[in-house]
Amino acid sequence: MRRNAERKIQRPKKHSVIVKSIDILIKNGWVLTMDPQDRLIERGAVAVSADRIVEVGTEDALTASYKAAKMIDAQEGIIMPGLVNAHTHAAMTCFRGLADDLPLMTWLNDYIFPAEAKLTPDIVYQGTRLACSEMILSGTTTFCDMYLFEEAVAQATKEVGLRAVVGEVIYDFPSPNYGPVEKGLKYTEDLIEKWRDDPLITIAVEPHSPYVCSPDLLQKARAIADRNGVPMVIHLAETEREVAEIKEKYGRTPVAHLADIGFLSPSLIADHCVVLTEEDMMLLKDFDVKVVHNPESNMKLASGIAPVPELLRHGITVGIGTDGCASNNNLDMFQEMDTAAKLHKVHTLDPTAMDARTVVRMATIDGARVLGIGDTSGSLEEGKKADIIIIDIRSPHLTPMYNVYSHLVYAVTGSDVVTAIVNGRVLMEERAFTTLDVDEVMASVNRIAQGIA
Amino acid sequence: MRRNAERKIQRPKKHSVIVKSIDILIKNGWVLTMDPQDRLIERGAVAVSADRIVEVGTEDALTASYKAAKMIDAQEGIIMPGLVNAHTHAAMTCFRGLADDLPLMTWLNDYIFPAEAKLTPDIVYQGTRLACSEMILSGTTTFCDMYLFEEAVAQATKEVGLRAVVGEVIYDFPSPNYGPVEKGLKYTEDLIEKWRDDPLITIAVEPHSPYVCSPDLLQKARAIADRNGVPMVIHLAETEREVAEIKEKYGRTPVAHLADIGFLSPSLIADHCVVLTEEDMMLLKDFDVKVVHNPESNMKLASGIAPVPELLRHGITVGIGTDGCASNNNLDMFQEMDTAAKLHKVHTLDPTAMDARTVVRMATIDGARVLGIGDTSGSLEEGKKADIIIIDIRSPHLTPMYNVYSHLVYAVTGSDVVTAIVNGRVLMEERAFTTLDVDEVMASVNRIAQGIA
Repeated sequence: MRRNAERKIQRPKKHSVIVKSIDILIKNGWVLTMDPQDRLIERGAVAVSADRIVEVGTEDALTASYKAAKMIDAQEGIIMPGLVNAHTHAAMTCFRGLADDLPLMTWLNDYIFPAEAKLTPDIVYQGTRLACSEMILSGTTTFCDMYLFEEAVAQATKEVGLRAVVGEVIYDFPSPNYGPVEKGLKYTEDLIEKWRDDPLITIAVEPHSPYVCSPDLLQKARAIADRNGVPMVIHLAETEREVAEIKEKYGRTPVAHLADIGFLSPSLIADHCVVLTEEDMMLLKDFDVKVVHNPESNMKLASGIAPVPELLRHGITVGIGTDGCASNNNLDMFQEMDTAAKLHKVHTLDPTAMDARTVVRMATIDGARVLGIGDTSGSLEEGKKADIIIIDIRSPHLTPMYNVYSHLVYAVTGSDVVTAIVNGRVLMEERAFTTLDVDEVMASVNRIAQGIA
Repeated sequence: MRRNAERKIQRPKKHSVIVKSIDILIKNGWVLTMDPQDRLIERGAVAVSADRIVEVGTEDALTASYKAAKMIDAQEGIIMPGLVNAHTHAAMTCFRGLADDLPLMTWLNDYIFPAEAKLTPDIVYQGTRLACSEMILSGTTTFCDMYLFEEAVAQATKEVGLRAVVGEVIYDFPSPNYGPVEKGLKYTEDLIEKWRDDPLITIAVEPHSPYVCSPDLLQKARAIADRNGVPMVIHLAETEREVAEIKEKYGRTPVAHLADIGFLSPSLIADHCVVLTEEDMMLLKDFDVKVVHNPESNMKLASGIAPVPELLRHGITVGIGTDGCASNNNLDMFQEMDTAAKLHKVHTLDPTAMDARTVVRMATIDGARVLGIGDTSGSLEEGKKADIIIIDIRSPHLTPMYNVYSHLVYAVTGSDVVTAIVNGRVLMEERAFTTLDVDEVMASVNRIAQGIA
């Protein structure tokens, strides 16, 4: 910045173009901004300095205005905001395909819980590194995580360079990480303290769900979140079974129960929300609760279909998440967008439901809003953090292109992403990583998997 | 073969291993046979001579038995039968993403029909070449096509080297290709004559659907198919609207109507079958009609969800298809398998519905049976045609691997296919084509798309 200022002083000539030095100029692509005007710029460019976007415009304008230390040619592809995976359990990559096509309780009791009982910080660290590799390769630049040993998740994510909201899962029974629940609250507060003001990592308070968290625990969690100004994450109304259980226990739906105990708030991120009443939706809207839709996990576990078109009609902010790799079994947000768009069309028998533009919005700017970082992330706009991906469209399955939104939702997959930038740092270029040794990451998880199997 | 025989005579020593010369030996992979025993061979190999598989077994056994002109190392990946895309309209790649998220009639009348009115043999030829490129890249080695100007489809497919069942669409109104319907029947008979005994191309008789084909036309179509011993393809019971229309016109469901006029037969390939009664399913079973499930198209067009688990319980043979790129918008059978497995779980609220093994079967051996080529294709077995693909599993999103079937359905996408062999000929190796110039194919379709847009 100072250099630019000096240059300005040195060249006071009238009408001359001031050429500013920046770090990165991305050019020669369709710039999909996802800004409030939904601008799509043909032969566009994005200028990046340090961790920020300094300008978005036409290639002609920006190449005249900036001198970049690094120039990236998008090869007529799509330059867009990095995707926001608004709900996952990153380290569960270690259990990808361990057990599928089973009744829920068999799956949990015979496979997932026994495997999780053996978790260590190192397994979580390695599994998170694998998840980060997969997310970078498929265009995700920000994710929201809930799991065990989240200090290891934060550490792995920070090292790799992704942006994340992370939090330790808390419930009434003892955890393989911290032991009794009081220690879980302490662990969370320590995480908040340690990672405060980190440029990439935000800590959230994350009680698992109303069916394994007492009202007392939920209220304590909310108090910690309020005191520290951090978001909360919870699984909510995921299955009919959960709704029946909560109704029996508390006499009301899970959403109404949370409203009743004062848990709902604008900084609450509610995952799944599959089984909702009209009254539940009005409560979510009234308290401005954010919702995350996980269509593939809800399908695979046979949980049901979340009423997303109705949530959107209520004006509720909805993001998209993949959920963990034990119930998906991948972290590809492009496939998740495709499924989200198609699932609601067939469910409502309306081919206009969940149009492509709406779905791209959910996976970018609305996802960022869900995580409470919409002001600084989720779109390509001057002053926002530089979280940017480039998609190569020179493939048979992406030929021809009539409509960018349609392409992103119905034809692009994660494997078409060639470049990923987070916080102004290039994490992947031409599908090569700059911050991790992917062969070593895969070898580590393969060793872990041998122990699990 | 003769060379091997000579060698046998030259080396009559007892207990010596007879080393046979073959064309291709694929080794160092998980060989997923899809044979009647569902054999999965760890560190397996497949021996290919001319257009056939000569043996499937362990790498140790086969490397001792064969001397191959070409050795392919699967790098510990998955060696499996090429996928069968049992229903598509290949040349509609030209309309990929032209119009989405619209009411059905707007989509058809304002976009698809006007675009199709301008079709030429060259557009269909180029669009088919693009589709073939995409199918090879994503692991499909056989497809079943219905469209206009099918001579161009057969020609393009033959040149590229894929296996296909193709047929000219016939209906009561004039066609942009052949004009009046009688000429459509003649065109079909000419195709049958021209392509008889072709090693890759089978011609089918393809009346569009019961709602645009009169009973008289359907009966003439059936007579041609019977006379020539070729399959028939029809769209059947795709929407509630179709069922209502046929009921009003003929007093019975589309399936019952076709039974009534003597159209159902074991060589009939019925696409979609979304809206069926119990009686319909019994009729399909009684006549051994083959069914093709197109979940993504049915979702995107909001047609409904085909009762596939029930069809399977009835013992009906069901394959999987992508449908055309105007209603999907890609030809990736791996994504189609993923969707098929998940869609029926959530629809039936049963996570055990449509397990991964069943779905892989539908996309391979059962797909081949649907097309009437199950005896010679669809699995890796001695004597069958060598239609083989190799999947590279050394990627973050395919790490770790606990179960091959789960991986194929829930984690692999088309971009993980590295090698494709059809009829013993290598069409792609390390994702490079051997029979087409993909840049030229894409450039041709991009030029066509400019004219359409």
